[in-house]
Amino acid sequence: MSVFLNPKYAALEAYAPGEQPRDQQYIKLNTNESPYPPAPDVVAAMTSQEAALLRLYPDPTGKALKEKLAALYDVKPENVFLANGSDDILNFAFMAFGQNGAVFPDISYGFYQVYAQLHQVEDEKIPLKADFSLDYRDYCGKNKLVVIANPNAPTGMTIPVSQIEQIVASNAENVVLIDEAYVDFGGETCLPLLGKYPNLLVTRTFSKSRCLAGGRLGYAFGAPELIADLEKLKFSTNPYCINRLTLLLGEKTVENESYYQETCRKIQRTRDWTAEELQKLGFTVLPSAANFLFAATKKMDGETLYGELKRRGVLVRHFSQGRICNFNRITIGTQAQMETFLRRVSDILGGQP
Amino acid sequence: MSVFLNPKYAALEAYAPGEQPRDQQYIKLNTNESPYPPAPDVVAAMTSQEAALLRLYPDPTGKALKEKLAALYDVKPENVFLANGSDDILNFAFMAFGQNGAVFPDISYGFYQVYAQLHQVEDEKIPLKADFSLDYRDYCGKNKLVVIANPNAPTGMTIPVSQIEQIVASNAENVVLIDEAYVDFGGETCLPLLGKYPNLLVTRTFSKSRCLAGGRLGYAFGAPELIADLEKLKFSTNPYCINRLTLLLGEKTVENESYYQETCRKIQRTRDWTAEELQKLGFTVLPSAANFLFAATKKMDGETLYGELKRRGVLVRHFSQGRICNFNRITIGTQAQMETFLRRVSDILGGQP
Repeated sequence: MSVFLNPKYAALEAYAPGEQPRDQQYIKLNTNESPYPPAPDVVAAMTSQEAALLRLYPDPTGKALKEKLAALYDVKPENVFLANGSDDILNFAFMAFGQNGAVFPDISYGFYQVYAQLHQVEDEKIPLKADFSLDYRDYCGKNKLVVIANPNAPTGMTIPVSQIEQIVASNAENVVLIDEAYVDFGGETCLPLLGKYPNLLVTRTFSKSRCLAGGRLGYAFGAPELIADLEKLKFSTNPYCINRLTLLLGEKTVENESYYQETCRKIQRTRDWTAEELQKLGFTVLPSAANFLFAATKKMDGETLYGELKRRGVLVRHFSQGRICNFNRITIGTQAQMETFLRRVSDILGGQP
Repeated sequence: MSVFLNPKYAALEAYAPGEQPRDQQYIKLNTNESPYPPAPDVVAAMTSQEAALLRLYPDPTGKALKEKLAALYDVKPENVFLANGSDDILNFAFMAFGQNGAVFPDISYGFYQVYAQLHQVEDEKIPLKADFSLDYRDYCGKNKLVVIANPNAPTGMTIPVSQIEQIVASNAENVVLIDEAYVDFGGETCLPLLGKYPNLLVTRTFSKSRCLAGGRLGYAFGAPELIADLEKLKFSTNPYCINRLTLLLGEKTVENESYYQETCRKIQRTRDWTAEELQKLGFTVLPSAANFLFAATKKMDGETLYGELKRRGVLVRHFSQGRICNFNRITIGTQAQMETFLRRVSDILGGQP
């Protein structure tokens, strides 16, 4: 830290992204990326003609992509916000709507509390129940910015939209942000509530189900006034935050919806199979509607298992937080990758080298 | 604006980027993009194999690109910061170092005052002299965040590094940010001061001289402690803000330095020729060391000329600010584009339709 830094950021603890080691090739099951490439049409859109056009700025309004997303999800373009990944949108939301404080579960996406700290938003962390389920009544009538990932991360667990609606309806004075980063893997979207509640903000990402983590593209749905607030912050920060080519790939992605529906189904099948196999090995596996599993075994503590897997070329994500330190979060890869993963787990628990 | 927006942003006025009209093909001389494509090696690096890898997150540390930039500019990797365009870096700098206020010229990059307003940084705008030159003594001993674009925009005018050094040396308690977005077109870089002053921050961009405005890549040089402060804010906001492919194209760009030196020289030659031609037509043209000219004529007010050019398919940038409302900022395109531009100007001033 330099002597010049604003003291209000002195105690700030940044988010720690999943590790990206370069010392060897890993089976990478640690950052919830898709094991499948973008659709062939998306890959094909990356021509050298488009590369040459990188000399030009992107369209800062993202008009064409907004129109396509609006058509796909049956909303209007003015209900759509685009930014550099959903992290970018979460950051704006804490800035824009956190003045009365924010509330989120104790076990959820770790970045929420970083954003709260960054923007001096007082946060209230509500413990999930012992089985990691969320009691929606804990979030009713808070009159603070409510932030819920549905499905939740790193648990993968969901709550039904009927419960989301109770939360949104009972917090009419404040924004309720539903982070649907993982919704395409079996969650229930709350988008149908959009027209009814001006305080509902739904965030999404192209990083997981749309196989475009490296492209940096997130989107959100909300009432036009909420979207206008976010646009104002974006245009006061970095209007050109989305890569020109990424806007084009985003459009092509929307046009290839069936490819992504299919890869999502494939990941769900692999996930459910992997969960069963882990249970056969004695693991506790939380019921996941996401592209990862959250699992623990009494035979070995979570951190040791993480380390043994890494030593054998498989990366999973371990969080040292007390309540969950015995768990690991395992991204669902291809069927073959998960077979290798399970063999390594068997080896480790069976005492093989 | 929604009823939910934090009142501290109620009066915020966002930055207005240069227009990107889609109604026809324009000769686009309004946002200081390069008229030349990225180097052939850069274009060729965009393979379908790389497109398929967009399923993976980028390296959030940008290690490989930092090492290449450090080698090119003879600094250490820990002196280098990377972000989503230099706007992203300017935003972080106002956040991190603006607690004692900020000072910048009245005529400069319009985003500085947006960042000041966004982060509640008290700003002092010092008028440039009548000839739009900057008196460096106005910025000595301010003990506030000093922000100077060198070359300045939209004037294109520079100050020598010896004067920058006086400013930096006399503001030891605060950061001095020198925005070198346009330095490659004939400005004098202050990078040699880096080792001597821990309060110097130099920002750069790949958007202008590196023909990569659509890729979104900015960089900065500073003492390791300053860079660490910026990294902390980046990792508390959006660690993956740079597109995976853009990191790769950035590396290839650094490897092709001679191509970019050559295109910069070409743009300088076209600029100097265009300036002479405009002077022959009776224009006042400020001495530019950037990839644009700032010019006015007594024969027609700036806004009318802008409008007449647009009607004839040539976009330039007009600012309505009082002191400069008679000027237009004209990005330097190819020689052929500038010939067309000059013909249109002649037609307009000669009363041709």
